Amino acid sequence: MNAPAKLPALPTVSDVEDAARQLRGVAIRTPLLESQFLNERLGGRLLIKAEPLQVSGSFKFRGAYNRISRLNAEERKRGIVAFSSGNHAQACAWASRITGTPAVIVMPSDAPKIKISNTRAYGAEVVLYDRHKEDREAIGRRYSDERGMTLVPPFNDPYIISGQGTIGLEIAAQCAERDIKPDAVLAPASGGGLISGISLAIKDRLPGTDVYCAEPDQFDDIDLSLKAGKIVDHAGKGTTFCDALMAPHPGDITFGVMSRNLKGAVSATDAEVEIAMATAFNYFKLVVEPGGAAALASVLNGKVPCANRTVVVVCSGGNVDSSLYSAIIARTPPV
Amino acid sequence: MNAPAKLPALPTVSDVEDAARQLRGVAIRTPLLESQFLNERLGGRLLIKAEPLQVSGSFKFRGAYNRISRLNAEERKRGIVAFSSGNHAQACAWASRITGTPAVIVMPSDAPKIKISNTRAYGAEVVLYDRHKEDREAIGRRYSDERGMTLVPPFNDPYIISGQGTIGLEIAAQCAERDIKPDAVLAPASGGGLISGISLAIKDRLPGTDVYCAEPDQFDDIDLSLKAGKIVDHAGKGTTFCDALMAPHPGDITFGVMSRNLKGAVSATDAEVEIAMATAFNYFKLVVEPGGAAALASVLNGKVPCANRTVVVVCSGGNVDSSLYSAIIARTPPV
Repeated sequence: MNAPAKLPALPTVSDVEDAARQLRGVAIRTPLLESQFLNERLGGRLLIKAEPLQVSGSFKFRGAYNRISRLNAEERKRGIVAFSSGNHAQACAWASRITGTPAVIVMPSDAPKIKISNTRAYGAEVVLYDRHKEDREAIGRRYSDERGMTLVPPFNDPYIISGQGTIGLEIAAQCAERDIKPDAVLAPASGGGLISGISLAIKDRLPGTDVYCAEPDQFDDIDLSLKAGKIVDHAGKGTTFCDALMAPHPGDITFGVMSRNLKGAVSATDAEVEIAMATAFNYFKLVVEPGGAAALASVLNGKVPCANRTVVVVCSGGNVDSSLYSAIIARTPPV
Repeated sequence: MNAPAKLPALPTVSDVEDAARQLRGVAIRTPLLESQFLNERLGGRLLIKAEPLQVSGSFKFRGAYNRISRLNAEERKRGIVAFSSGNHAQACAWASRITGTPAVIVMPSDAPKIKISNTRAYGAEVVLYDRHKEDREAIGRRYSDERGMTLVPPFNDPYIISGQGTIGLEIAAQCAERDIKPDAVLAPASGGGLISGISLAIKDRLPGTDVYCAEPDQFDDIDLSLKAGKIVDHAGKGTTFCDALMAPHPGDITFGVMSRNLKGAVSATDAEVEIAMATAFNYFKLVVEPGGAAALASVLNGKVPCANRTVVVVCSGGNVDSSLYSAIIARTPPV
């Protein structure tokens, strides 16, 4: 057996509680939605944590603000740089705007138009790159080296993870208010920042509740990593329209947290994600983007059973181009 | 001067407070949403009361449950009959279902499919009629006479008005929590049940706040009635795709409340309503049906100014067919 590589310091529930204090009055306590009518159809109880209603249209604002608002005066003056396919971009742009921090955001040129235009409209300098030819991390490093900007990573950072984890604290509190003990909590995963943070809160507040992440079919790097006991890339052969969920592998911090706290990683095909989006439209009147619907899809396709159980699903964002959304809603019936 | 006709007893804020107790744990306290980004564009502060997230997909559940849950055992056994273009139908069907009350719902045959199919799926007996040839009130009376069913009117009833009014109590409380004093509160209006109830709460809790209703252009019976000082029909020449807002005139109870409490009635064209729906999609990730977006449209078109002010708008429902919604979202840019 080889000696293990140096392990990163992992965030704890105290860091998540600290993030909740930092976000008070800034982030929205999103509602936990329920449709009794859908519950009847599923034969169980499904609760939706509605993060499309969050500032910037996705959960990403929580982590971005928790990181950017901690910069000291000198760091704030030099600004931040972030790379993201879109939701982290918008979140960093808006968190920078309201904290008076200059921001450069490195985005793939094929990101959804709504995400690029919102990031610009929020006041950030957007640098586009070709996802197939250029290395976004190298571009990001250039700005951090040349301009002294602080790099705000999309997921592998204790402040980012802790910020996203405030969703878990809210889920636990909202369940307690209604006297609910969920059997399982699920959220979509790309690099695992969201579900890592949530798992810290849930394992503290609801230790008997299973925590899962949901990935797009073929972009199953967390599933493969958890099964291998080490960080591995997804097979990467396929494609997915879940633009927010295409990270090649988890980070060492998110992997460290997930391998302790997750019961497993499930997945959904694009077709199943479309049905989940149509279901959120029909029963919850909530606009959910493809990547934001992966966990809901994984419950509707039975990967995590809901019958005779109570399951909480995070719908993580709603930043979808109107052309794609309207096409999906027009052609896809809900469950 | 003629002697006034017999005046109906008008509900008061005490009735609304009583309705809030009746609805506790049954109706959803819907969130008051805000987009700082949209606020910047408007140069003011806009808050959206998100009733598409309510049970049955619209505010109508509040009034329907407040009425149906008050039936005594004998009345409950005989059941209820309601006529509605859709949202009151679904609300009555679901309130009947959860209180174990048989329900007959009389609906126009050209109502949105989602509204008819949901009403049936909720377990009600649906009776369709031709809106251009048949009298829905006569059909409703037949059921109340022959089967002894209790008629649950769509708006002109103290319990219905008081139930809808709980939205006003929530708006006042949610504004107080954030230390907000709104300059104006608006809601869409058909027969005026929603805005009557809201006005009772707002005039009690926030006496300095102006209350307006919003009607579809040409379906301006409340505007005409308020200006005439008596109940008159709308001109009725035009058409509107706001299927929920086509009542020919207010009732004597809603008119009585509105003429005391409303600052005025404003209006929006269908094209303006489409922009409002696209705006709710883009900034709030909220699905709003045409009639549900009339008040938002009236603020965006400047009929009630938002610049340098704080305005609360009720988006009242989200039950829209996916075919219509997708067409609107695809062709209409947001503000």
